[in-house]
Amino acid sequence: MSLIKIRKKNPLIHCITNTVVTNFTANGLLAIGASPVMSDEPLDVEDMVAIANGLLINIGTLNKNSVEAMILAGKKANELNIPVVLDPVGAGATTYRKEITKNLLKEIKFDLIRCNAGELAAIAGINWQAKGVDSGEGEMDITLVAKETAQKYGAIVAVSGKEDFVTDGIEHYPVSGGHELMTQVTGTGCLLSAICAAALTLDGGKLENIRNVLADYKKVAENASKEKYLGSFQVEILNGLHQISRGE
Amino acid sequence: MSLIKIRKKNPLIHCITNTVVTNFTANGLLAIGASPVMSDEPLDVEDMVAIANGLLINIGTLNKNSVEAMILAGKKANELNIPVVLDPVGAGATTYRKEITKNLLKEIKFDLIRCNAGELAAIAGINWQAKGVDSGEGEMDITLVAKETAQKYGAIVAVSGKEDFVTDGIEHYPVSGGHELMTQVTGTGCLLSAICAAALTLDGGKLENIRNVLADYKKVAENASKEKYLGSFQVEILNGLHQISRGE
Amino acid sequence: MSLIKIRKKNPLIHCITNTVVTNFTANGLLAIGASPVMSDEPLDVEDMVAIANGLLINIGTLNKNSVEAMILAGKKANELNIPVVLDPVGAGATTYRKEITKNLLKEIKFDLIRCNAGELAAIAGINWQAKGVDSGEGEMDITLVAKETAQKYGAIVAVSGKEDFVTDGIEHYPVSGGHELMTQVTGTGCLLSAICAAALTLDGGKLENIRNVLADYKKVAENASKEKYLGSFQVEILNGLHQISRGE
Repeated sequence: MSLIKIRKKNPLIHCITNTVVTNFTANGLLAIGASPVMSDEPLDVEDMVAIANGLLINIGTLNKNSVEAMILAGKKANELNIPVVLDPVGAGATTYRKEITKNLLKEIKFDLIRCNAGELAAIAGINWQAKGVDSGEGEMDITLVAKETAQKYGAIVAVSGKEDFVTDGIEHYPVSGGHELMTQVTGTGCLLSAICAAALTLDGGKLENIRNVLADYKKVAENASKEKYLGSFQVEILNGLHQISRGE
Repeated sequence: MSLIKIRKKNPLIHCITNTVVTNFTANGLLAIGASPVMSDEPLDVEDMVAIANGLLINIGTLNKNSVEAMILAGKKANELNIPVVLDPVGAGATTYRKEITKNLLKEIKFDLIRCNAGELAAIAGINWQAKGVDSGEGEMDITLVAKETAQKYGAIVAVSGKEDFVTDGIEHYPVSGGHELMTQVTGTGCLLSAICAAALTLDGGKLENIRNVLADYKKVAENASKEKYLGSFQVEILNGLHQISRGE
Repeated sequence: MSLIKIRKKNPLIHCITNTVVTNFTANGLLAIGASPVMSDEPLDVEDMVAIANGLLINIGTLNKNSVEAMILAGKKANELNIPVVLDPVGAGATTYRKEITKNLLKEIKFDLIRCNAGELAAIAGINWQAKGVDSGEGEMDITLVAKETAQKYGAIVAVSGKEDFVTDGIEHYPVSGGHELMTQVTGTGCLLSAICAAALTLDGGKLENIRNVLADYKKVAENASKEKYLGSFQVEILNGLHQISRGE
């Protein structure tokens, strides 16, 4: 349902994201009728975010220059009441990512933190064995930690996994369905974060809109799984986003 | 016709382009039998462009380092009589892009400026409501502005839209056809600019060669539209370029 | 056979690679059951490589910042006995690439150098007419030069071409098969280097594992050639990697 609404609204989403997923993210946003724009140069981003409807900050392949751009763009978005999403890719993998994530959360007010369990653990300071940018393994009460994190930062927190989980710190919903192949294509989480940025531009409750988008995305994964190999599965994700957002 | 000629010639095209479209641009050039090379490090580009047959400068995700590389590569290309194409992505969207575009046009002699209406307006200093890197809306006599811009910079100007338009400041041609899905895949304009750089390496009239390439590209879009969803449509663009350039 | 073993092991491969092939490389690694992680920021790479099982250094779109990261990551990998692969893309094309390649070979102990004939010639200091990042043309005894290079650097050397060739400086094997379309999709060599980094994490002889991976890759190319055009062929490469690594 939310994907259809995004197509009707056609929001412009400024993405500061990693170099692995730029193309897939842009095509994914276009597939649901949103307009992507990418810029990670400090001299460029404040003007760019000012004409955007939403901002995505994804630290997947951060560098000193893009981190500076993230801070500038995030602050400007806050100033202009433009919704901001954080995708803390691999937040727990390195000291640098941990520090940058901490700093981003200090300097910028995020509307949504979208992450996997390992990244949530890193934000919450819980011991966890992440595997690079993959979720990894550990023990924590995800529901509890996500709710506390949502309350601490005044943000919705969406945690991806076999079953997704979304909370604003008070209410919380599981979102089930999907298909395991979705975790085996690079950038599906990153694209979901970009789509969530688009969903935050919609009228209505933010939590409800995010929840609907997560459910739509699970549906896309299920439909795409008619292809059993990853090359064709990736193509089908874009096809599915296009199709579902057109109400077909 | 021009795509077939490009395959016969196999030109090496040095692309300084944005991080969203690198892969699609490289594969698109390979699909028509051209050879892509990408480099945007100031210490590397002068040597690289010196062995190339054509240069593309695309400002889609510019940064201070790549802008320096663009200037160096462009000047070297001018010195060696290697044709240069400018794709001023989102030129009107931010002050930084406007300034960089102005500076590129001052420092480098371009053989072709390939843009959309919003970018043309930005170059010509006309008021226009661009939407990020999309064309946007406004009122201007595109024919007149394109011709004046072509005359001012001594370059061919090709403006993409529902109907494309190409002029050298004296002659001008519309190029019709194509399919609207082409505007919904990221990087199709960027790839067209790269292909135009390859077309400028051909024998014969430059305006004629660009016009033919634009017409071929419209044909590719029409053929690809047998796929109605974006994932498969994108794959078909590469297939179509490959097929048409092989005369099949 | 090696691809099946990689899937069983699921190694984490840290890739410092070029911006053209990031997505294709990540999806290719995922397709064989490996986990990719990309990071090219000096402040980030030492921690990242420390949790990885293998490191790929690919100079395709190097810049001053990423070169610094390559050195730091490579040294750390050496310290931790993590295998390192060098893909010296376009090593002979520019003075800068030649210098950086020389410096990387001086500062880092590589387990494998995977390259084409032109890049091998550049490393060995032999006169050769490369074409940008393509192999180009020239005369040398590839067998001899590859063996000498392997001995000089204490690395396995794998040279891609119509027939691949792999040597540890003592033994050497040709690997035949494959399909010419493989050279017409961008990043197939770069992906092969990443897959080789994964192969170096396997038990057993390194030379044997690399040889097996090269043979598997030829098989993937042959299977993918049921698609005659490049867009679909590229999708089939990922499908084929997925399929073969699953033993299907």
